[in-house]
Amino acid sequence: MGELLPKLATIPEGIQSAADYLPLARERLLPAVWHYLEEGSGNQVTLHTNNCVFDSIRLIPRPMADVRDGHTRITLFGQTLAHPVILAPLAYQRLYHPHGESASAMAANAQGGQLCVSSLASQTLEEIITAAGQPLWFQLYWQEDRPRTLKLLRRAVTAGYQAIVFTVDAPIKQATIQLPASISAVNLDTPAPFPALLPHQSQVFNGWMAQAPRWEDLAWLRAQTSLPLLVKGILHPEDARKVINLGYDGLVVSNHGGRVLDGAPASLACLPEIVSTVSGRGKVLFDSGIRNGRDIYKALALGADAVLIGRPYIWGLATVGALGVAHVIRLLRDELEMTMALTGTASIREITREKIISDRD
Amino acid sequence: MGELLPKLATIPEGIQSAADYLPLARERLLPAVWHYLEEGSGNQVTLHTNNCVFDSIRLIPRPMADVRDGHTRITLFGQTLAHPVILAPLAYQRLYHPHGESASAMAANAQGGQLCVSSLASQTLEEIITAAGQPLWFQLYWQEDRPRTLKLLRRAVTAGYQAIVFTVDAPIKQATIQLPASISAVNLDTPAPFPALLPHQSQVFNGWMAQAPRWEDLAWLRAQTSLPLLVKGILHPEDARKVINLGYDGLVVSNHGGRVLDGAPASLACLPEIVSTVSGRGKVLFDSGIRNGRDIYKALALGADAVLIGRPYIWGLATVGALGVAHVIRLLRDELEMTMALTGTASIREITREKIISDRD
Amino acid sequence: MGELLPKLATIPEGIQSAADYLPLARERLLPAVWHYLEEGSGNQVTLHTNNCVFDSIRLIPRPMADVRDGHTRITLFGQTLAHPVILAPLAYQRLYHPHGESASAMAANAQGGQLCVSSLASQTLEEIITAAGQPLWFQLYWQEDRPRTLKLLRRAVTAGYQAIVFTVDAPIKQATIQLPASISAVNLDTPAPFPALLPHQSQVFNGWMAQAPRWEDLAWLRAQTSLPLLVKGILHPEDARKVINLGYDGLVVSNHGGRVLDGAPASLACLPEIVSTVSGRGKVLFDSGIRNGRDIYKALALGADAVLIGRPYIWGLATVGALGVAHVIRLLRDELEMTMALTGTASIREITREKIISDRD
Amino acid sequence: MGELLPKLATIPEGIQSAADYLPLARERLLPAVWHYLEEGSGNQVTLHTNNCVFDSIRLIPRPMADVRDGHTRITLFGQTLAHPVILAPLAYQRLYHPHGESASAMAANAQGGQLCVSSLASQTLEEIITAAGQPLWFQLYWQEDRPRTLKLLRRAVTAGYQAIVFTVDAPIKQATIQLPASISAVNLDTPAPFPALLPHQSQVFNGWMAQAPRWEDLAWLRAQTSLPLLVKGILHPEDARKVINLGYDGLVVSNHGGRVLDGAPASLACLPEIVSTVSGRGKVLFDSGIRNGRDIYKALALGADAVLIGRPYIWGLATVGALGVAHVIRLLRDELEMTMALTGTASIREITREKIISDRD
Ligand SMILES: Cc1cc2nc3c(=O)[nH]c(=O)nc-3n(C[C@H](O)[C@H](O)[C@H](O)COP(=O)(O)O)c2cc1C
Ligand SMILES: Cc1cc2nc3c(=O)[nH]c(=O)nc-3n(C[C@H](O)[C@H](O)[C@H](O)COP(=O)(O)O)c2cc1C
Ligand SMILES: Cc1cc2nc3c(=O)[nH]c(=O)nc-3n(C[C@H](O)[C@H](O)[C@H](O)COP(=O)(O)O)c2cc1C
Ligand SMILES: Cc1cc2nc3c(=O)[nH]c(=O)nc-3n(C[C@H](O)[C@H](O)[C@H](O)COP(=O)(O)O)c2cc1C
Repeated sequence: MGELLPKLATIPEGIQSAADYLPLARERLLPAVWHYLEEGSGNQVTLHTNNCVFDSIRLIPRPMADVRDGHTRITLFGQTLAHPVILAPLAYQRLYHPHGESASAMAANAQGGQLCVSSLASQTLEEIITAAGQPLWFQLYWQEDRPRTLKLLRRAVTAGYQAIVFTVDAPIKQATIQLPASISAVNLDTPAPFPALLPHQSQVFNGWMAQAPRWEDLAWLRAQTSLPLLVKGILHPEDARKVINLGYDGLVVSNHGGRVLDGAPASLACLPEIVSTVSGRGKVLFDSGIRNGRDIYKALALGADAVLIGRPYIWGLATVGALGVAHVIRLLRDELEMTMALTGTASIREITREKIISDRD
Repeated sequence: MGELLPKLATIPEGIQSAADYLPLARERLLPAVWHYLEEGSGNQVTLHTNNCVFDSIRLIPRPMADVRDGHTRITLFGQTLAHPVILAPLAYQRLYHPHGESASAMAANAQGGQLCVSSLASQTLEEIITAAGQPLWFQLYWQEDRPRTLKLLRRAVTAGYQAIVFTVDAPIKQATIQLPASISAVNLDTPAPFPALLPHQSQVFNGWMAQAPRWEDLAWLRAQTSLPLLVKGILHPEDARKVINLGYDGLVVSNHGGRVLDGAPASLACLPEIVSTVSGRGKVLFDSGIRNGRDIYKALALGADAVLIGRPYIWGLATVGALGVAHVIRLLRDELEMTMALTGTASIREITREKIISDRD
Repeated sequence: MGELLPKLATIPEGIQSAADYLPLARERLLPAVWHYLEEGSGNQVTLHTNNCVFDSIRLIPRPMADVRDGHTRITLFGQTLAHPVILAPLAYQRLYHPHGESASAMAANAQGGQLCVSSLASQTLEEIITAAGQPLWFQLYWQEDRPRTLKLLRRAVTAGYQAIVFTVDAPIKQATIQLPASISAVNLDTPAPFPALLPHQSQVFNGWMAQAPRWEDLAWLRAQTSLPLLVKGILHPEDARKVINLGYDGLVVSNHGGRVLDGAPASLACLPEIVSTVSGRGKVLFDSGIRNGRDIYKALALGADAVLIGRPYIWGLATVGALGVAHVIRLLRDELEMTMALTGTASIREITREKIISDRD
Repeated sequence: MGELLPKLATIPEGIQSAADYLPLARERLLPAVWHYLEEGSGNQVTLHTNNCVFDSIRLIPRPMADVRDGHTRITLFGQTLAHPVILAPLAYQRLYHPHGESASAMAANAQGGQLCVSSLASQTLEEIITAAGQPLWFQLYWQEDRPRTLKLLRRAVTAGYQAIVFTVDAPIKQATIQLPASISAVNLDTPAPFPALLPHQSQVFNGWMAQAPRWEDLAWLRAQTSLPLLVKGILHPEDARKVINLGYDGLVVSNHGGRVLDGAPASLACLPEIVSTVSGRGKVLFDSGIRNGRDIYKALALGADAVLIGRPYIWGLATVGALGVAHVIRLLRDELEMTMALTGTASIREITREKIISDRD
């Protein structure tokens, strides 16, 4: 095991795609941090299928179309974004680069996109939004009960966050990384005490799950803010229906990058049925497994309104900070544009189911 | 080939799942013993598919369900078990640890579960049940004829065993391990003489199979005891129907961990049709291939009333004796609870076919 | 590359299946000979699928059946064989052991089976049948024209061969092994001169294929002998129908062990449709890919009346001569018997389609 | 990394198929050149599936057919070719051998076939056709606008090229090899200036795609020549219909050897639907993934009128110049002939869908 390589100050030569940052990032991170970033839960079956599922979808070249006016702009909750690539909420970004979440925020802004800041950010919400120079999105985790959750939500709203993404798929925090002393979830209060368990009570059911949000909390939360509010971590169409019926503005089809329930389906496999259930009554965002612009195109073709990317932008962050994140976004967008051009697609709206062939067809 | 590592006295650090015991066990067992434990028959096709088949089944996360009252309790033949994880009958457990079957029995009891003691136990039935401090189950092998079989059954009943599992899928004992002098099937009489064969008679048909139980013996056996009586090693629905029609209390869908007929289907692949054939008229237990709590969940979702685990608890036994077995059970139960929590399932009864997606769907 | 190991004089220890002879054989053969024996044509796609296809078929254990009278006897063209395992015609067997075809013949006889001697045998037909001590089968290759072919056929009949297997699937002899001076096709005349080709004529069409047998030759051949006559190398049901309509007694479904047309289907995949086409009007034998007794069972379940094995018996021959061949046959038969016993099958006739599950079901 | 091996002057020993040239070529090319030749775009998913798809198609041996008059001749646009194997347009062939495109042209002629010379040839069109000693085909790339394109077309026509293949599937030239100073696209004018982009304009849409041909240009081009005119790079049946309706004489079903849009379907997978759409109203040629004569047979069976081969002939060129190219063609033709002979096919026309089985059947 050699020394960690130092962070770079300029974009490295020869990078052709986001994946080219992977080895550069690994050389710059402690093995435990690298493992924490990349790992999936259990036997990594879901992690693996998240990526593979994209290969089962084919893109059909359609040369000679007129795409001279092509562009990747979308409008989401009133904001125009230059492209549909949003940076997913990932905890503790100072693990990867001293500039942490601020670097990601600056990069998202520079590329005309968005960052969703995690409840577990390692910098203050205010600091990050200042660095961004634009309103950001805030990812909310349930804080054991309603008052504590409301407090965190209000802080984000006050800080100027303009959309809230409520993540519901990770109620149980399993064995994770041992954070260095200098890094913590600075925006959170000390956690509420873990429920005292009777003998024969279950840590899972009577402990963690007693502190997890339930459907009635979801209804309650909707009433607490008039900002655009999304639920992240939906894979079942029935849950999608309920979320939309509760008045949410949208949802994120996600399996948390394969990090929670191993054996969960590939996120992409769940997308089409949810899109048809939501049927335009809210926005359907997508994440888990996207690694290049062709993957983005496929998710959009299956009905997503926009996508979130997770690990790939952290590879850029770990290598060269904000510059790296911006470069990853740019690479993804370029690949998306090329895929659009080669498939004869001039706008995001034109990326439809007819543009692809699935092995299931 | 280095020295064997010594058994541990305390649970090792860093174990996250039963599979983490595998390498620790291997380092503590002679290669021939390890091979005997792990091997499948033939080209190991069945062994392999036993494990892989679980990956073709997907678990659907259902966040926000109310599972605060969740638990894993089941009732089986009048006994309440804290969880549906039963230790399968495995022969000669002193091969793995000096405390042998007694250690497994103590662990099962400590974890609120059950052990099914093999006919080929390396400690006396009485000794094991004493160590257990609770009634256990007894796995019966046919002893070449009715009187000999009855004698063994009676001994188990007298010793206090409370349920009998009659294993029928291994009539032919093929080349197996050379037992050390100190280890033997202490509960068995000297085997009856092997049938004398005429020239051109077959060792298989006229030898082994002449000493194997037949359907009429199954009917006879049912009449010999009023204890709960199960047949282990059923894969064909027609056989399941016959077993139940003969008045048996249940059966174990099992291919003996891939150790008998190579090319037999994955045990899990046979489960649904048998469940629907039995249709509640008896208990359907399941084994072969379970390695974690998600696998347990899948077997239950496909209709099993409880599961047996084989090799994984031996990994714990070989590493750290009764403590290791107990730890393996606890890990499996924790994973089962987490899977239940994440899929919105508050009781074993709620683990139904709707909770999963099979690649065949 | 070390020295070749010497042939053994007694059966080696620890052999559990035919495949265990493979490494022992390889150590005893020159690489070029080994390669010639094992190779498939082209990219070996057919060779590979020949073996893999068996794994897609499942055997269903049926314990408790009464198989005490079980046996593997069959009757083929009036002869009773102890088992349905026939040694396929393989050329030049003195390449593998000095005792050559005679050793195989003795082994087949000792085990109550049959050997089909190749046109390309490296010992005289008379010598081999003498060693056998029983009538054998003769595999006939077309000898460029009718008179030459008839001459070879008559020699075999005179020598006492009792059935003729006419191989039609290898009209083109591609680059093959360079035979040592001492080994040759001793039963053949010098080949007829290769057709003189005009410029722009094709070696394939105007050369090889001009010397290959055609359907009218097949009709002619049938008229030349009243012995049981089979065609070897049929994969299309239409060809099977024609063969039977011409009055042949049977055929061998075979792709020549994957040695001729790469890309041909697995032989087993072609079997069921041919069986249903022939529909009892002739015997359907099978070869290509069988490696153990379970494979034999599967081929019989799909409708074959008997099977031929190729390379596996040569592994035995190359290791320990006639003893090795006999041992391989015995191992295959033992496995077949065990498979029958475990699936509740008391005779070859009872091995039917219902006994198996195909992945295609 | 050792020295590059020198080019050979005679055909090397022991070559059995085109693929045997691959290692010999690699040893004779700089890694960057080798990589440029072999690479696919993106994650090489399309490159990989181009080759694998052939293995999913089975050839059915049909022995005893009368193929003594068999041949591989076809007539294409009035020219009789000895076989249906055309050399695909590949840029900059002096990268592989000093004799460059001229060597390929001579070989094509010697073998009674055709070469399609690339717009990016590294020798003049006149030089190559002189070396060929016969009229060749010319592959036309759009030259940013109509006048420039017309100029190039006219030069080819004047030079004596007899058919034009207009490649439309590669409008975006991505990062490619750095050509040595001595090698360039000698037949092209300096490219037109790249469009000046406004801030926030896209290099892809407003740059590359503004210089790409559109359907109206395709109509225009048809009017510029009465030579046989084909479009290369069609995968969607709707595009095939449009091409034919515009009066084109044919098209090439191709994904450019997996070098443009990664994720595009295997070229072979698109062939049948296009064949049935074109329905004889034009010629359907095929390329991408062919590596041997069996692959050619499969493409023809799925409806192609002829095939183009790419990388394999360059392996021959890189090893031994024109001799190597001629040898590769001859090997492919021999394999095609053997496949025809073994499947009972006497002419290219007889190679039909009934001759093969697809895994999808
Ligand atoms: C290291 C890491 C930390 C994460 N932290 C959070 C988090 O704090 N909140 C959250 O909602 N999702 C979190 N996620 C999930 C991501 O938001 C996103 O769903 C996932 O990374 C998408 O999959 P991908 O990495 O394959 O693109 C995290 C993911 C990773 C890899
Ligand atoms: C080493 C070993 C010994 C076994 N001995 C017995 C036995 O004595 N009686 C019995 O009914 N099953 C026996 N089995 C089968 C187990 O009861 C059980 O069916 C199997 O191990 C389940 O598969 P698993 O190991 O994949 O969980 C044995 C299995 C193994 C691995
Ligand atoms: C080395 C070798 C030589 C063969 N020679 C002949 C032959 O002379 N005549 C013939 O009909 N088949 C010949 N065959 C084909 C076999 O008869 C048989 O069809 C094939 O080996 C069956 O496949 P298997 O090896 O997978 O069992 C030969 C096969 C091999 C491997
Ligand atoms: C190195 C290389 C250069 C190529 N240059 C051209 C070209 O200049 N024009 C063109 O139409 N196609 C070009 N192609 C695509 C080929 O014409 C052809 O479609 C492809 O090589 C077929 O796939 P294969 O290599 O698998 O046979 C090129 C392909 C390669 C590998």
